[in-house]
Amino acid sequence: MPLPTRRDLVRMAAASAAARLVPPALAQEPRTVGYCVVGLGRIASHFMAGSRLSEYTRIAALVSGRRDKAEKFAAQYNVPPGSIYGYENYDAIAENKAIDAVIVCLPNSMHAEYTIRAARAGKHVLCEKPMCTTVADGEAMIAACRQARRKLMIAYRCHYEPLNLKAVAWLREGRLGSIHTIESAFGYNSAPGEWRLNRKLAGGGPLMDVGIYCLNAVRYLTGEEPTDLKGSMTVADPSDPRFKEVEEDLVWSMRFPSGAVASCQTSYGVAMQGYFHVRGSKGTLHMDPAFNYDGLRFAARIDGQAPIDESSQYRDPAQFALETDHLAECILQNRTPKSPGEEGLRDMRLMMEIYKSCGRA
Amino acid sequence: MPLPTRRDLVRMAAASAAARLVPPALAQEPRTVGYCVVGLGRIASHFMAGSRLSEYTRIAALVSGRRDKAEKFAAQYNVPPGSIYGYENYDAIAENKAIDAVIVCLPNSMHAEYTIRAARAGKHVLCEKPMCTTVADGEAMIAACRQARRKLMIAYRCHYEPLNLKAVAWLREGRLGSIHTIESAFGYNSAPGEWRLNRKLAGGGPLMDVGIYCLNAVRYLTGEEPTDLKGSMTVADPSDPRFKEVEEDLVWSMRFPSGAVASCQTSYGVAMQGYFHVRGSKGTLHMDPAFNYDGLRFAARIDGQAPIDESSQYRDPAQFALETDHLAECILQNRTPKSPGEEGLRDMRLMMEIYKSCGRA
Repeated sequence: MPLPTRRDLVRMAAASAAARLVPPALAQEPRTVGYCVVGLGRIASHFMAGSRLSEYTRIAALVSGRRDKAEKFAAQYNVPPGSIYGYENYDAIAENKAIDAVIVCLPNSMHAEYTIRAARAGKHVLCEKPMCTTVADGEAMIAACRQARRKLMIAYRCHYEPLNLKAVAWLREGRLGSIHTIESAFGYNSAPGEWRLNRKLAGGGPLMDVGIYCLNAVRYLTGEEPTDLKGSMTVADPSDPRFKEVEEDLVWSMRFPSGAVASCQTSYGVAMQGYFHVRGSKGTLHMDPAFNYDGLRFAARIDGQAPIDESSQYRDPAQFALETDHLAECILQNRTPKSPGEEGLRDMRLMMEIYKSCGRA
Repeated sequence: MPLPTRRDLVRMAAASAAARLVPPALAQEPRTVGYCVVGLGRIASHFMAGSRLSEYTRIAALVSGRRDKAEKFAAQYNVPPGSIYGYENYDAIAENKAIDAVIVCLPNSMHAEYTIRAARAGKHVLCEKPMCTTVADGEAMIAACRQARRKLMIAYRCHYEPLNLKAVAWLREGRLGSIHTIESAFGYNSAPGEWRLNRKLAGGGPLMDVGIYCLNAVRYLTGEEPTDLKGSMTVADPSDPRFKEVEEDLVWSMRFPSGAVASCQTSYGVAMQGYFHVRGSKGTLHMDPAFNYDGLRFAARIDGQAPIDESSQYRDPAQFALETDHLAECILQNRTPKSPGEEGLRDMRLMMEIYKSCGRA
C-alpha cells in the first residue's frame, strides 16, 4: 500500500473533521459508477448501505438465487426489476449499460468464476477478500480482467480506512524508528453450518477469512513482503462438528527484509478482536480494534512525546463507501486501484505457504 | 508443573493475606539450609536479599573473582571470611560443612561446570535459568547430581509465584474451558557489552534469557509439551554492534497435543513487558506483567462471571525466598524439587529446536 496521496489526506481530514460524507442526493449525479452486487449476504448489505454515503457509487443491479430477497433490496436501492438477475442469466449483465462494475460478495470459491465472467461481460470488478481459493484462480482472474481491459480491485477495506492509513504513514515517516516486532490477531467463534466451514467453498479456515487481515496489515505496515512464513494449526476440540474440513486455530510467524518479525493468530473457535501492535526502536503503535467496521482506536507511545489515543470518526457503513468510491474514481479516471488483483494474489500465495508449513495437503 | 499442593495453597493464602514473610531472626534456627552463592551479579543480589525474608535459607558462603565485592556482601549477610571463595579454590567448598547447597548465578555457559563441581563437592544445586547452553551440558549436570545423590533445581521463579500458580490451577480446573490460543512475549533493550550478547557465554540471545519465560509459561499453563516449534529470528539494524553473535528479535509458534496453539515473541532490541494471554472456550486469562519480580497482575474474564483483577501482594525480593525455601524444604525432607534439572533440560531441547527452525547453525 503506497503512502496516502495529498488528495487522500485532504479527503481523510475533511471526512474525519466533520464525520460527514456526501449526502445521498449527489449519488445521482452523472459521473457515478453503477455497481451490480453479486450475492446478497451480510457483506453485500454493508456495501449497499455504504453506497448511500458515497460520492460516486450507485447500486445498479443485483444478482441472487433468491428473487424475493433481491426484490426487497431492489426496492430499497431503486434498482429496476429488469436489473435483477439470477445466477443462470448472470452473463446478461453484459447488455446492461447501467452496470459499470460488479461487486463479488459470494463464497470464496465462487470469486474467480464470477470475476472472470464479469470481465468477459465488459464490467470492472470489486472482489471481496480472500480473492479466491487457489493461486491458479487468482492468476486467471488477473489475466481475464487484463484481457478485457477492466479494473480488478480486491476489497481490502483497511487500505482505505483513515486510521490504518495514518499508521502506515507514521511507519513510513520513521516515527517509530526501526520496526522490531508486530503482533496481530483476529478471530471469532464461528456459527455451525456456515459455508466458511466448508473447505471447498471457503478454501480454508479462519486464515482465509480473518487471519488475512493480520497478514495483509503486517504487509502494509512494513511495506515489505514477508519471508520465512511458518505456522501451526489445530482443532481445539476434535469432536466439534464445525472443524471437520478447516482449521480452528492457527498461529504463524514471518520475517521481513528490513529486520522486523511478526507473529499472528487467527481462530474460528474464540473471539479475538482484530488488532495489531507494532514495536519500534522509538516507540509503539497499537490499533485495537484495527479491522472492525467502526470504533477503531489508534494509540501511539513515542519516546519523548505525549501519548496519542484517537478513535475513528467513521461509523459503519462509511468504510464501504470509501472502497466503492476508490474503484469508481479509478474507473472514471482510468487509474489502477491501490489494492489490485496482484495484491490479493500475493496474500493467496502467502496463505498457501502458511498452510503448507502447517502440513496441510 | 503439577497442581499446587494443599500445603502450597495454605502458604500462598497466608503469605498473600498478610503480605508478611517469616522475619529474618527465624532464618538462624537450626533447620536451615546454608547456600553458597556463586557469582555475585544482579541476580545473586536478589537471592541474597530474598534470604532475609526466608524461612529455611541462610547465606553461608560466597564465590567471586573479586574479593572486595565478596567482602562487602559477606559483611551484609554475616558470612565468615573463611567462607569466601575465589573460582580457583571453588572445590574447597566440599570441606565447608556450613554449605548445604550452591546457587549458580554465573553466565549461562558456566552453569554446567559449576553445577557439576558443586555436586562432586557433595552440595545440592539451585541453578539459574537457562540451565546451560547445550543439551549435552544439561544431561551431564543431571547425571552428576544424580550420581552424587544431590538435588538439582533450576531457578524457575514463576513455578513458585502465587499468581502464576493460580493461573495454572484455574486452567487445570477447566475454568477457561478448552484452551485455544496463548500469546506470550518478553523482551528488553539490552545494554552494549553485556555477557548476554556473547554467544559463547550466553548460548543464544533473548530466547535463552527472557524468551525462556514465555516458553516455560506456555508449558506450565497447558501442562503439556509443545510440538511443531517454528520460529523466525532477525536483527533489526545490521549495523548495531550488539548483535554480531546473537539474535535481536525472535518470534515462534507451537502446538500442543490437547489442541492449543501458542505464539511468542522475545527481543533484546525493544521493551516488551513479559505477559501471557490465554484464550479458552469459556473466557480469557491475562497476566501482565507475568514474570516481573513484583507488581504482577492477574486478570480473568470468564463467561457469566464478574471480571477478576488481582495484583500480587509480594514485593521483590520475596519471590526469591520462595525459590530458595522450596529447594531447602526438598533438601530437609528429601523430596524432588518441582523444577528439577529435567525441567530445565526440556526447555533447552525446545529452544534448540526453535533455533534450528530459525536456521541457526
